[in-house]
Amino acid sequence: MKYFLIFGAGKSSLFLIEHLHAYGKSKQIKTVVCDKDIDFVRTIFNLDDFFEFKQLDIFKSEDLEPLIKNSEIVVSLLPAHLHLHIAKYCLNHNKNLCTASYISDEMQQLNEQAKQKGLIFLNEMGLDPGIDHMSAIQLFDDIKYKGGEIQSFKSYCGGLVDDDCEGDNPWRYKFTWNPRNVVLAGQGGCAQFLSNHQLKILPYHQLFKKQDVFNIDGQILEGYPNRDSLIYTKAYGLEKTSTIIRGTLRKQGFCSAWQQLVSLGLTDNHKILQLDSKTTCRQWINMYCPMGVESIQEYLSCNDEDMAKIKWLGLLDDSLLPIFKGTSAEILEEILKTKWQLMPNDKDMVVMIHEITYQLNNKLYELKSFLKLKGETQTRTAMAKTVGLPLAYGTILLYEGKIKTKGVIMPIFKEIYQPVLEQLKHQGIDFQEVVNELT
Amino acid sequence: MKYFLIFGAGKSSLFLIEHLHAYGKSKQIKTVVCDKDIDFVRTIFNLDDFFEFKQLDIFKSEDLEPLIKNSEIVVSLLPAHLHLHIAKYCLNHNKNLCTASYISDEMQQLNEQAKQKGLIFLNEMGLDPGIDHMSAIQLFDDIKYKGGEIQSFKSYCGGLVDDDCEGDNPWRYKFTWNPRNVVLAGQGGCAQFLSNHQLKILPYHQLFKKQDVFNIDGQILEGYPNRDSLIYTKAYGLEKTSTIIRGTLRKQGFCSAWQQLVSLGLTDNHKILQLDSKTTCRQWINMYCPMGVESIQEYLSCNDEDMAKIKWLGLLDDSLLPIFKGTSAEILEEILKTKWQLMPNDKDMVVMIHEITYQLNNKLYELKSFLKLKGETQTRTAMAKTVGLPLAYGTILLYEGKIKTKGVIMPIFKEIYQPVLEQLKHQGIDFQEVVNELT
Repeated sequence: MKYFLIFGAGKSSLFLIEHLHAYGKSKQIKTVVCDKDIDFVRTIFNLDDFFEFKQLDIFKSEDLEPLIKNSEIVVSLLPAHLHLHIAKYCLNHNKNLCTASYISDEMQQLNEQAKQKGLIFLNEMGLDPGIDHMSAIQLFDDIKYKGGEIQSFKSYCGGLVDDDCEGDNPWRYKFTWNPRNVVLAGQGGCAQFLSNHQLKILPYHQLFKKQDVFNIDGQILEGYPNRDSLIYTKAYGLEKTSTIIRGTLRKQGFCSAWQQLVSLGLTDNHKILQLDSKTTCRQWINMYCPMGVESIQEYLSCNDEDMAKIKWLGLLDDSLLPIFKGTSAEILEEILKTKWQLMPNDKDMVVMIHEITYQLNNKLYELKSFLKLKGETQTRTAMAKTVGLPLAYGTILLYEGKIKTKGVIMPIFKEIYQPVLEQLKHQGIDFQEVVNELT
Repeated sequence: MKYFLIFGAGKSSLFLIEHLHAYGKSKQIKTVVCDKDIDFVRTIFNLDDFFEFKQLDIFKSEDLEPLIKNSEIVVSLLPAHLHLHIAKYCLNHNKNLCTASYISDEMQQLNEQAKQKGLIFLNEMGLDPGIDHMSAIQLFDDIKYKGGEIQSFKSYCGGLVDDDCEGDNPWRYKFTWNPRNVVLAGQGGCAQFLSNHQLKILPYHQLFKKQDVFNIDGQILEGYPNRDSLIYTKAYGLEKTSTIIRGTLRKQGFCSAWQQLVSLGLTDNHKILQLDSKTTCRQWINMYCPMGVESIQEYLSCNDEDMAKIKWLGLLDDSLLPIFKGTSAEILEEILKTKWQLMPNDKDMVVMIHEITYQLNNKLYELKSFLKLKGETQTRTAMAKTVGLPLAYGTILLYEGKIKTKGVIMPIFKEIYQPVLEQLKHQGIDFQEVVNELT
């Protein structure tokens, strides 16, 4: 029997697998799901003739190669650095590939070879990157079709906790995604964006200091800039646009308090500490306060709200650290994993916003387009849905031969984003738009 | 004729060469000086039968090997990362080696081999590291000999400009040493030190925020901590000492203003900028101010003194940048090279201070020991003298067979520091001491 081949059976794979399986069943195509650990999918899905779960080490070529060779199409939801490994087999065996990850330099280097073979490696096909590209470009197309000219573009996305599930947590944040990525967010280089024709560069230690603020449906959210907001300038056709910024959303008050943890040095992931097994949280924080933990607020010059958040995490308490060996980022992650844990009945919430100003017939308009989606359960999360469904739709477009652009691509082409956004709408993944004329 | 072999003929080699040559002449030993570029020594020294200057590529084994093989002893003042290359030839040809640089991990790994061959690789034999080790350990020995117990040890050193040569420069600093090292100082990891039994860790972006302040002979100096102050705890015999900090000295007001440049991100040496060739200093700074350069003081929350220093550098002026391609650290370095340039009649000044508190007969004492040395001319600098002379004395001790400790070592042994400090004293490199009983 023909089969779709999916690598990655983690929590974010649920909607992808569910949708591809349903589609495959209707076409007499099996869905084969492979990973090192397949416990999650085993407990979630009922096996039928159109399902196969395979425990697999992707570095065992003798296992991997025949699987890819005989598949219809390959989808990878593995950690981003593993896509290249899969992509090389796809190249050898002439298979199209779909991922939800940023195109790495190494992946981009396969572009010419893929083109020559008429292959399509469709990447950035999740939420962010993914739905952000597709929804933004559709807005740009509309504006340009009417004859408008885009002056400013701000695009932010965040994986948050549903407002009803915040509890007494003053950070108003819980982990709905990889904790490690949240703790290390923004490290490894300066962020850059364009503000009123001016290039802006922010070092990591200032990244969370000054936020863009958005009013979404009456709720105030704030955002900090992502690494390089300008890499899509050309792909988006924004060469003449004076403000371009892409960023990450948090609820109000988060960034300022997180900036304090960054300022202290608690997110440092280089220096490995080997602490005494009686070290308390307070003693650990004291290490980062040259004048002592007692004067932490004075040292940081931070406000009472930020201090309340720091205290709520227990960082100033005499309780033992959860681990005694590791970088401070690792220690902080362990503390946050407890404090920011998503409880069994908690639901997540995905928010995406595009704020565009444009000139049309000598008038200036502001367009706000936003998506706010709540998770159904702790497993059927908004995050898994918004990552998995576009990936499934992209895979089906590929399978049906409806994408003509070849090579290593992302969903900036109408042949991709139009049908995908249409199908997402039917699943309730739908943007609301407000246009105001600016004086 | 026998010969001493010196690698490195830069400005810091003057006193080393002068002294070794004078000593060699009295013993009928030549001094051979090698470097890629030997223009400086050619203009400074008059050639005689006991001098030889060789232009040499140290990576040409056929040139390097016979030189080392036939030498009496080898001295390297090359950039630190090149010592290992020289050390390996010394090992092969059974030659002792002397350097003024920190012992790298790679150099340390040669310890066993050097010991087995009865060789001595004497490192950290300059000013800092060098005189700092020797002078501190002599103080510790004195205190311990009397039965005292050391409670606290602070050691700071700085290469500064002579007070009389500051001009109108509000930073009160000029480059008397490698500008690159000054701009990048403290990067590449957190600093750590011990304060009142408590380990303290400072990330780079906080390094210049809070300074130790010293009154040296009526002059206020300030210092920031160096990388890891605790690596010498054992070598210094300070296992029971509650405060250990080693750092770098600047004149009052420097650190707080430098902290502002670090906070902005101007010392970033990763992101390579490719700017328009009409970019001004002000436009460059504007990139690092999210709300615009106009509100820089508000953004940094810095005081008027810091702002005056930033303005004096011309950073807010509409003048063109000196270079348009490079990291911001490189751009900043070019600007500073002009603004902080040592003028022909300017002299430098080296300051070192040890502040030690110790308990003796149930009383607590504070010992301040400091060295303040001014340069003679722009070439006969205090820096070149305090780096070059200990290296020369160490080399002569090695040549005369007066050092019994074998292997990869630093000058923490009495057989080294006692005669070297004694000779330095005769050259006016002499510490002043003040002891006060603390209540």
